[in-house]
Amino acid sequence: MKNSIITLLTDFGTKDHYVASMKGVILSINPRVTLIDITHEVHPHDIQEGAFILANSYSCFPKGTIHLSVVDPGVGGIRNPILLVTQKYFFVGPDNGLFTLISQREKVKQAVVLTNKKYFLLEVSSSFHGRDLFAPVAAHLSTGVAPSTFGERTDHWVELALGKPELRGDRLIGEVIHIDTFGNLVSNIDEKTLFRFMKDRPLVIHAGRKIIHGLKKRYEEEEKGKPIAILGSGGFLEISIREGSAQEFLKFKRGDQIILQVISDQ
Amino acid sequence: MKNSIITLLTDFGTKDHYVASMKGVILSINPRVTLIDITHEVHPHDIQEGAFILANSYSCFPKGTIHLSVVDPGVGGIRNPILLVTQKYFFVGPDNGLFTLISQREKVKQAVVLTNKKYFLLEVSSSFHGRDLFAPVAAHLSTGVAPSTFGERTDHWVELALGKPELRGDRLIGEVIHIDTFGNLVSNIDEKTLFRFMKDRPLVIHAGRKIIHGLKKRYEEEEKGKPIAILGSGGFLEISIREGSAQEFLKFKRGDQIILQVISDQ
Amino acid sequence: MKNSIITLLTDFGTKDHYVASMKGVILSINPRVTLIDITHEVHPHDIQEGAFILANSYSCFPKGTIHLSVVDPGVGGIRNPILLVTQKYFFVGPDNGLFTLISQREKVKQAVVLTNKKYFLLEVSSSFHGRDLFAPVAAHLSTGVAPSTFGERTDHWVELALGKPELRGDRLIGEVIHIDTFGNLVSNIDEKTLFRFMKDRPLVIHAGRKIIHGLKKRYEEEEKGKPIAILGSGGFLEISIREGSAQEFLKFKRGDQIILQVISDQ
Repeated sequence: MKNSIITLLTDFGTKDHYVASMKGVILSINPRVTLIDITHEVHPHDIQEGAFILANSYSCFPKGTIHLSVVDPGVGGIRNPILLVTQKYFFVGPDNGLFTLISQREKVKQAVVLTNKKYFLLEVSSSFHGRDLFAPVAAHLSTGVAPSTFGERTDHWVELALGKPELRGDRLIGEVIHIDTFGNLVSNIDEKTLFRFMKDRPLVIHAGRKIIHGLKKRYEEEEKGKPIAILGSGGFLEISIREGSAQEFLKFKRGDQIILQVISDQ
Repeated sequence: MKNSIITLLTDFGTKDHYVASMKGVILSINPRVTLIDITHEVHPHDIQEGAFILANSYSCFPKGTIHLSVVDPGVGGIRNPILLVTQKYFFVGPDNGLFTLISQREKVKQAVVLTNKKYFLLEVSSSFHGRDLFAPVAAHLSTGVAPSTFGERTDHWVELALGKPELRGDRLIGEVIHIDTFGNLVSNIDEKTLFRFMKDRPLVIHAGRKIIHGLKKRYEEEEKGKPIAILGSGGFLEISIREGSAQEFLKFKRGDQIILQVISDQ
Repeated sequence: MKNSIITLLTDFGTKDHYVASMKGVILSINPRVTLIDITHEVHPHDIQEGAFILANSYSCFPKGTIHLSVVDPGVGGIRNPILLVTQKYFFVGPDNGLFTLISQREKVKQAVVLTNKKYFLLEVSSSFHGRDLFAPVAAHLSTGVAPSTFGERTDHWVELALGKPELRGDRLIGEVIHIDTFGNLVSNIDEKTLFRFMKDRPLVIHAGRKIIHGLKKRYEEEEKGKPIAILGSGGFLEISIREGSAQEFLKFKRGDQIILQVISDQ
């Protein structure tokens, strides 16, 4: 019995018994594990949002952490259950693209399709693999069972085209992929893409009918009530309003476009 | 000090200090306990919903787990605080029917009315027995205090008629007792009652104006956007829509009827 | 490595990666710590509400608990990060008044402005000090690092005038500072102020257009559906409705006035 950490990320919400059932199953197999919720409020079936939130948090955890992630619209169908092993972490969940941003950022050392029923619950329902399959696999992994034991090695897993920003002429077209509790609009424009596009030239951002000039380093550089662009703590460009909600101010929703231009020096 | 597990199920929500206060009290008595939230989002004072969610999750936990459940509209009044001991678990909470489904499924080995003030906080408020009475009792129990120490043995506890399905002529009348995060409509028709009613005959389900034919085994047997009936992971008949919300589609709310018929072979 | 407790109170919500990132950082520094959420649903930037919820729960926890509280509208600006040490607890967070009720109730033995970068993450973002500064400081504190090591001692910290009740002629004017899950209206009139005002004389309470007579000891003293005044479990005067929502009944919102009068015996 090891003292490992398992994180949980799902779209199960917290008002039902689902998450608790997964935790009960895990603790029945390894009572010494530390369970940490990432979130259970991913929009139902929204693989892209789940992938994004996981990508923003997984690397804060200690080496050896098992990230158990279940956003699984195809549960009971043909999608595979999978385990990815990277340099520092383990990822357990459905092979539907939920780990796209992980496998783009981390070297996957080993991928295993979960087929060994020995590590599932005795009866596997068709609608709740979180409890019957993924939770017990993560729990057994936390006790030290070798990854290869859980099924067959594979070199293929699903990667989604997660709405990457698009270069069109002199413009970079991004979109809002997440709106946080504060109403900050988180775009899909990551730090690297942003700076490669800017090349130290002044930036102009079109967010709906609003035009925002320049990239700010901290909220206090703008007065309250005015929208600013900032590189968020997750490494993506965000539109924010100091002590206010950019979502309410701009009437934005997920999927809406953020358009970047640079001012060339002629 | 033992390394036990205490689960918490309440209608306290998570925006107030209530749940944290209970956890602080428990950790002050047994700092080594593992605390697991089942849910705190039971509708206020809804004993039936609390009973249902507890029934769906308690058995996933390891032997010896203490289930601390507080949905307590009569707090400070004449209802008794109670401890039920079953083969594998302990249940602590108000004796108001919250444990109805437990005592129907499990043999209650011992029931104790909690009267021994030694195990309460020094001052017991009239409105927050969760913190002042139930939490400390659960915590002391987790340190190994014998159940009988907490008060007087009893052979009586409250069981509610939790809206059981009703056989009327050739129809079985159930109702929606819970709507989950995905909009699945969970009925009060359990597996046993269902199969006893069907006797392998084809099933027709009336949900509002919609008619659903047959019981499906997995979501993928129906196309997206069409309602299906499935035996849910908690063992109750559910109306679902693959990758959609049956609640929105059928405009259902809790308490609405689900009517089952079978096609006889004349 | 000690087996300490760190509580978390923020306005970060639970749908984003923020809270999990803080927990990952803490566990990377001290994997043996016990993490307890107080709440993450403080209204965004609402320091007063955060202060109130913290004040209602901190003292339930065992001696030595580290209370990590981040409601931080001025993140990245000029406000100081601070550590307060009281007889029993540690408080880590922004010095913006969040600990006002703590320093009014507890003797502050030591206050330290957090300046020692050795205990921050290597890169400190301008928008997420919860993860980059406060979480690592709390985690190092939990491993036994001495408070004075984290920065410079100070004798000053921010205390807010947190809407104290006001005596006007023969009336005591309070306001609703929190509305809980059940719709109970929690006022800023604390037990001491209340009894000093009442001096055993009969109380009349004006809540909007409703008049409530007397202070009740328990919900059951009034019939269902009628508003009552009660001393809540957190030590503040509350307006409640037995098995109902006083908020809905009285159409109250935070900031609305509660006016107390006493009937003098001529």
